[in-house]
Amino acid sequence: MVQDGRFARYWDFGFCVAKRSFDSNNVELDRGCRLRYHETPLQVRFYEVDSYGVVWHGHYVGWFEAGRNDLTQRFCMGPLQLKETNYLAPVVELNCEFKLPATFGASVIIQTTMERTEVAKLIFHYRVLDQENRKVLATGSTTHVLTDLKGNLLYRVPQEVLERIEAMQKYLGV
Amino acid sequence: MVQDGRFARYWDFGFCVAKRSFDSNNVELDRGCRLRYHETPLQVRFYEVDSYGVVWHGHYVGWFEAGRNDLTQRFCMGPLQLKETNYLAPVVELNCEFKLPATFGASVIIQTTMERTEVAKLIFHYRVLDQENRKVLATGSTTHVLTDLKGNLLYRVPQEVLERIEAMQKYLGV
Amino acid sequence: MVQDGRFARYWDFGFCVAKRSFDSNNVELDRGCRLRYHETPLQVRFYEVDSYGVVWHGHYVGWFEAGRNDLTQRFCMGPLQLKETNYLAPVVELNCEFKLPATFGASVIIQTTMERTEVAKLIFHYRVLDQENRKVLATGSTTHVLTDLKGNLLYRVPQEVLERIEAMQKYLGV
Amino acid sequence: MVQDGRFARYWDFGFCVAKRSFDSNNVELDRGCRLRYHETPLQVRFYEVDSYGVVWHGHYVGWFEAGRNDLTQRFCMGPLQLKETNYLAPVVELNCEFKLPATFGASVIIQTTMERTEVAKLIFHYRVLDQENRKVLATGSTTHVLTDLKGNLLYRVPQEVLERIEAMQKYLGV
Repeated sequence: MVQDGRFARYWDFGFCVAKRSFDSNNVELDRGCRLRYHETPLQVRFYEVDSYGVVWHGHYVGWFEAGRNDLTQRFCMGPLQLKETNYLAPVVELNCEFKLPATFGASVIIQTTMERTEVAKLIFHYRVLDQENRKVLATGSTTHVLTDLKGNLLYRVPQEVLERIEAMQKYLGV
Repeated sequence: MVQDGRFARYWDFGFCVAKRSFDSNNVELDRGCRLRYHETPLQVRFYEVDSYGVVWHGHYVGWFEAGRNDLTQRFCMGPLQLKETNYLAPVVELNCEFKLPATFGASVIIQTTMERTEVAKLIFHYRVLDQENRKVLATGSTTHVLTDLKGNLLYRVPQEVLERIEAMQKYLGV
Repeated sequence: MVQDGRFARYWDFGFCVAKRSFDSNNVELDRGCRLRYHETPLQVRFYEVDSYGVVWHGHYVGWFEAGRNDLTQRFCMGPLQLKETNYLAPVVELNCEFKLPATFGASVIIQTTMERTEVAKLIFHYRVLDQENRKVLATGSTTHVLTDLKGNLLYRVPQEVLERIEAMQKYLGV
Repeated sequence: MVQDGRFARYWDFGFCVAKRSFDSNNVELDRGCRLRYHETPLQVRFYEVDSYGVVWHGHYVGWFEAGRNDLTQRFCMGPLQLKETNYLAPVVELNCEFKLPATFGASVIIQTTMERTEVAKLIFHYRVLDQENRKVLATGSTTHVLTDLKGNLLYRVPQEVLERIEAMQKYLGV
């Protein structure tokens, strides 16, 4: 899945696997676009494992969020930081594909990256990897709109937020 | 959103609102396709509400599951019942769109229906309604494969499972 | 555990089993005090069951809360209602004893009652029963202080709150 | 709360604060017994924060468990490791006291230690600290019995388990 072994602490240069999420937006991906992911390590918790002995699928939503916040907080785009700037970024869409089960005792890596869009939306893509063998356990995406604190939709990204997004995109190389 | 007021205890005859799942694929829906949903009432719990004062988006995954199990258990297709027949139906894909926030104190209705497919997959569609005004708060879907207890994928639905699915589809009118 | 079969819809007249929680405050209990409980029925959800096939012990905390809110909301003492009156009632202590496991597919009843205290604290007691056989699966208690919206501790229960508490205690017969 | 600044990576030498949990078992504690805690760092997750803006009290149960498993796994006493040896250690009692709220963005430390008992029970004690200022946010304890895989209670700790417990107690200095 991953083409080469050059992993920095927080980086994974790999082929995009979240095919469905990208292809209508970005034809480059079909030609082998490399995405860079921010990596957040997590330990599977006992209570996250269901009666089938694998992590219950709904907990991946919390993992995606943990990865996203770990990324966005470095660019003043975390939930609290956005709120202090008088904005919210609620999730309006969530997609997840489950490839392989995660089990108790495993360490996983949440990989998070961001899509470059023309509209006033934030689109994050995720991969959950087994830390030991780097196999992809799940992929997914979340789409966020921007609102003011009263929940009114913004149709344009405010300049102060745009600067943070651009810094994050530069970091991610997207 | 809902065309008429004839609600039986467990039934909602309404226009399909799960746009993404249907409308680009199925023009019939625009001409008034009626789906029937199994309904499961739930109370929003305090711990499901996040620091923005609305139900955290990840909890909808548990709500979908509660609706699905409430439906499938009536047709011996619940997780335990399937397991007793030596099958599992793990989630391989999850989609959710969030329309309006749910808040603490609200009562919601989880509507669940099932798609008729040609492949050995179970595809469920969900709507979360505000119980008071019947506004749609969220829509979503989950896709499940069938495996044996060792996790080996089944490429054909076993006869005993097929009979249950058909009974459920008859109940749902799909 | 329960002495007689006369169950009203929301009432259970039974011997107090939460011995440890009461004994220092209320000697009457040792002489066989009967408590009345408000009852809240719940379905066990699939995601609440852990890899041992039983409800994970931490989920009982959410169940206690669901029972407590179901009770307190009837007396304008729910979290939102208190907040509207400019008070909060945060949990400062939690105790739980686990007697028998709850499993997926089970229906449970959360029984909630309230202790009569001389101090500015709310002390709730809980029992979780199997709905089918009325066996006690768990017992527990939570202690809440009263604060203003800034978190300052109240050393006296405000009159408007006291009236609600007394109405609730009258309902509970404590 | 903590007497001196000599913190090793995983150790905290401090006065016991979980007064109530110990006093009937261990009179030494009243005379200022020092406990050593195993430390597990955690990031507060967004979904763990409730509508009051603080971590919902029930999530501390999962944190205690994360700390306990991080400790016990080092001594082959984790849930899976015990199960492989044909034993289970279900929680039969849980206590928690909440001192100060934890908020989103905070890093916390779960401190875990174990009580030395004469009976066939495992009793763990916990403290949750704010990582930045080392203030105690919560304390608690869990009591576990030992059973075989069928759930039959063990009245004596098996030798192979006893050796692991003693190694853990030696590590903890209890």
